[in-house]
Amino acid sequence: MPTDSPAPSAAVVVIGNELLTGKVQEANLLVLARELRRLGVRLRRVVMIEDVLPIIAEEVRALAASHDWVFTSGGIGPTHDDVTLEGVARAFDVPVRRDALLEALLRGFYADRLTEGHLRMADVPVGAELVTESEGAPDVVEIAGRRTPWPTILVRNVFVLPGIPQVFQMKIPAIRARLHRLGARPFVTRSVLTNMDEGNLKPLLDAVVARFEDVDIGSYPAWIGAPYRTKLTFDGREPARVEAARDAFVATLPDGEPLAVE
Amino acid sequence: MPTDSPAPSAAVVVIGNELLTGKVQEANLLVLARELRRLGVRLRRVVMIEDVLPIIAEEVRALAASHDWVFTSGGIGPTHDDVTLEGVARAFDVPVRRDALLEALLRGFYADRLTEGHLRMADVPVGAELVTESEGAPDVVEIAGRRTPWPTILVRNVFVLPGIPQVFQMKIPAIRARLHRLGARPFVTRSVLTNMDEGNLKPLLDAVVARFEDVDIGSYPAWIGAPYRTKLTFDGREPARVEAARDAFVATLPDGEPLAVE
Repeated sequence: MPTDSPAPSAAVVVIGNELLTGKVQEANLLVLARELRRLGVRLRRVVMIEDVLPIIAEEVRALAASHDWVFTSGGIGPTHDDVTLEGVARAFDVPVRRDALLEALLRGFYADRLTEGHLRMADVPVGAELVTESEGAPDVVEIAGRRTPWPTILVRNVFVLPGIPQVFQMKIPAIRARLHRLGARPFVTRSVLTNMDEGNLKPLLDAVVARFEDVDIGSYPAWIGAPYRTKLTFDGREPARVEAARDAFVATLPDGEPLAVE
Repeated sequence: MPTDSPAPSAAVVVIGNELLTGKVQEANLLVLARELRRLGVRLRRVVMIEDVLPIIAEEVRALAASHDWVFTSGGIGPTHDDVTLEGVARAFDVPVRRDALLEALLRGFYADRLTEGHLRMADVPVGAELVTESEGAPDVVEIAGRRTPWPTILVRNVFVLPGIPQVFQMKIPAIRARLHRLGARPFVTRSVLTNMDEGNLKPLLDAVVARFEDVDIGSYPAWIGAPYRTKLTFDGREPARVEAARDAFVATLPDGEPLAVE
């Protein structure tokens, strides 16, 4: 097996009662998960919790200590249920402090509609870094048709991201720019489609799983109406190894298989 | 504040590398979250983890001890990456044992295509209960156009559910039947739509939040193009209290507001 440094690890903390009560379909995780694969970061755990300050603090503290990167989604805003920034501060035992740059941006954006509630969004944990660069361009969000610079908040290894999916997605380029600098190698996925079912595939899969410990091999039955019965996936950061595992598996399939190889 | 026993609590463990790698959009949580609201059960935490036996075991052990109900989604099947039943067994320090009823069902379903891989799906934790009743009818799933009885597996307070969304949904009636017997009162939600933004709403919300501690009040900004700016939600199990909170809030709104009340 080739030697390879392990991929950086990540965890996501999704915050919001609206998700746990089924009012809203979670929509940020898939976007972030796909981006992390491209960046060579392994997402190992996602936790969805209520917007309760001590719960957020405890979760962020534990995950920040056990993962290279943590991403929070949601709970950024002016109202009583927006307590993520305070939660992240408490996770690191630091207070929040009003940031002058964020305050200026908020005053510029809201102008004479500005309230003390809005200004709470400028209260960030002491020591927070404001990531203002996004792939060479300023980090902006577009709200109600107006583009405004809005830095991405990074507290040690915790990116604090907004929950609204449209705004969450605007933060992806800043994350990409920041993590890309670290130069992790992206994950690649290869796949095989077959008409065999999982019960019959099991011994073939067990053999290739044993031979390729550095390749993550998945088996996913299709539902009725799909043009195949089972999809096998081969994932890793070393394309040659991933393809060797895939090809070793394909070589064990009976006549007429596989249906497709990617 | 009226006295009320707290709602039963629940946690969900979503298992599968295909979700953490962004290959597949998670689709079971919303269905289960909505059902739990109707059943009066409070979903407090969701954890999404890789399909690794000791991780599953540790997570299930912790959540089963701290919640009234736990639901696992995924990792039920014949292949190497299907380790949820073993994980649940290990969480409770019991072995798995081949269940005669499940084995008979598998033999009937697969007939001469049956493999040892398929039979692994009959290996359940010792002490597991097979929930065969689903609202008066037998608990069935329909696979590849064939309906087959398939009990829902309940290990102490842990429902072990399949990850494929179409099959997951077939298990909801059995869960409903089982939890409905316990007679928890459903949650109700009321809502208010307004053109005010969150910064201006904050003092009004703070006042009603302070007065109605037993009502969960949420504030959700709409995105561009919505016919309102902010949606407020009021949740609880006592409709009169929920509506009193909503009405107290509405009474504080300025002229021309709210846009709508539900």
